[in-house]
Amino acid sequence: MTSHTTLEGLGSFVHEEIPTAEIDRLEEIHGPLVAAVRDLVDVTIRTRVDDAEVRRVTAAVKELTDRLGHDAMEGPAGVHYNSEGRSWNWGNAAVGMRNPVAPPLKVSHDDDGVTRGVASLGTPYEGPPGLVHGGASALLLDHLMGETASMRHSQVTFTGTLTMRYLAPLPLGEVRLEGRIERQSGRKVFVTAEISGPAGRAIEADGVFIVPRWAVRDGAGPA
Amino acid sequence: MTSHTTLEGLGSFVHEEIPTAEIDRLEEIHGPLVAAVRDLVDVTIRTRVDDAEVRRVTAAVKELTDRLGHDAMEGPAGVHYNSEGRSWNWGNAAVGMRNPVAPPLKVSHDDDGVTRGVASLGTPYEGPPGLVHGGASALLLDHLMGETASMRHSQVTFTGTLTMRYLAPLPLGEVRLEGRIERQSGRKVFVTAEISGPAGRAIEADGVFIVPRWAVRDGAGPA
Repeated sequence: MTSHTTLEGLGSFVHEEIPTAEIDRLEEIHGPLVAAVRDLVDVTIRTRVDDAEVRRVTAAVKELTDRLGHDAMEGPAGVHYNSEGRSWNWGNAAVGMRNPVAPPLKVSHDDDGVTRGVASLGTPYEGPPGLVHGGASALLLDHLMGETASMRHSQVTFTGTLTMRYLAPLPLGEVRLEGRIERQSGRKVFVTAEISGPAGRAIEADGVFIVPRWAVRDGAGPA
Repeated sequence: MTSHTTLEGLGSFVHEEIPTAEIDRLEEIHGPLVAAVRDLVDVTIRTRVDDAEVRRVTAAVKELTDRLGHDAMEGPAGVHYNSEGRSWNWGNAAVGMRNPVAPPLKVSHDDDGVTRGVASLGTPYEGPPGLVHGGASALLLDHLMGETASMRHSQVTFTGTLTMRYLAPLPLGEVRLEGRIERQSGRKVFVTAEISGPAGRAIEADGVFIVPRWAVRDGAGPA
C-alpha cells in the first residue's frame, strides 16, 4: 500500500494511503509518550540520585526500549504523505512530533506572508550557562527558513547558503521566530528570519534557498 | 563549597571543588543511563506497538522520571570547573555527556592546529528523508567553530556571525568535522570549518567569533 519516490541524493518520500483521521489518532496516542520521554531526557541531565538507583533506572529504561522496539520500523522515519494532502515527518529533528530530540518547533504560515515559529527550549538546549546554544537557534532558524522558502510546501527547496548574525544572548525558555521571503529570482529564493526571546531579537539570519532543476515546471522557472 | 561567577547577559560558571577523579567516576556511572535514554528516544520515533502498549510504556517512563527527579538539581546544568582545571558542561546541547539530546559531538584539539569532531547522527537527527537535518549540521558546526575560536578554552569567545554553504546532501550516520583559525585581528577570531560524510564535504562554514571586552587582558587585545 506504499509507493516510494527516490530523488537524487535523497532518501524516499513515501506515499502511504493512511487516512488523515488515523494519522491524527496516532499522533494523539503517541503525543503523551513523546512528552514523557522529553521529561525523562530533562531529568537525566539534572538527576542526583545515588549510583545504585542510576543503575536500576538504566536497566528499566533498557527494558522499555526493548518493549517499544518489538517490530519497530527499520531506519529513520522519513517523510510520508497521503492523497488527502496530509503529510507527516514524525522523526524531523526540528518539528518531528514523535521525536523527543525536537523541541518541537511549531510553525504557522500566516496570512500576512510571515512564517512564525514558537518553541520552548529547556535544559537540553543549553550552550553557555542559562542560555540557548547558538547552534540550537541555528537549527530552528534553518528549519523555519526552509519552510518559509517552500511557501506552504508548494515548492521544493534546498538550503544554499545561510548567514546568522548573533546580536544578543538568548535565555532558555520560550523563543519566537519569524521568517519572510524577500524576493525570488529564477531558482533562488531569498529569505530573512530572526529568533527572539523576552528581551527582543537575539539572532537575525538571511539565506538563499534553491529550487532544484528537477522541480522546475517546464524548465522555465518555478510556477 | 561552590562560588558563582555571573557574567553580563550570562548565567553562571560555577567553581565547584569536586576532585577530577570523582567527576570521572560520575561520568562512568551516568554514561550508560544517557546511552539507554538515547536508545529510548530512537525507538520512540520508530515503534509500532499497539495503543495499549504505548499507554503502558508512557506510564512506566513517567515513573522513571519521578524516580530520577527525586532531589534533582533545579534548572539547567550550566558549566562547572574545579581548581585542577577540569570542567564539565553535562547539559550542553552539542557535547553534553549527560544530555541525551546531544549526539554527542566528540571534539579533539589536535597538534596540527586543527580542531576535529566526530558524531554519529541517527534517526533523531533527520531532516529530508534519510539525510541529516541541515540545522543539526549547523548546530555541530557552530559548536566546533566556537571551540576552535576558544583555542582549547584559553580565551572566551562568542559567535558574531556564521555563514554556511550547503554543497551536498549528508546521509544519516557518522559525520566528521574540522575547524581552523584562519586569523585573529584584535578581538575578532576568523574561523573556517566543514562537515563531511562518507562521500566527502557536505557543508563549509566560516565565522567571526568575538572576544568580549571584559575578557581582554590589559585592555590591549587578547594575549
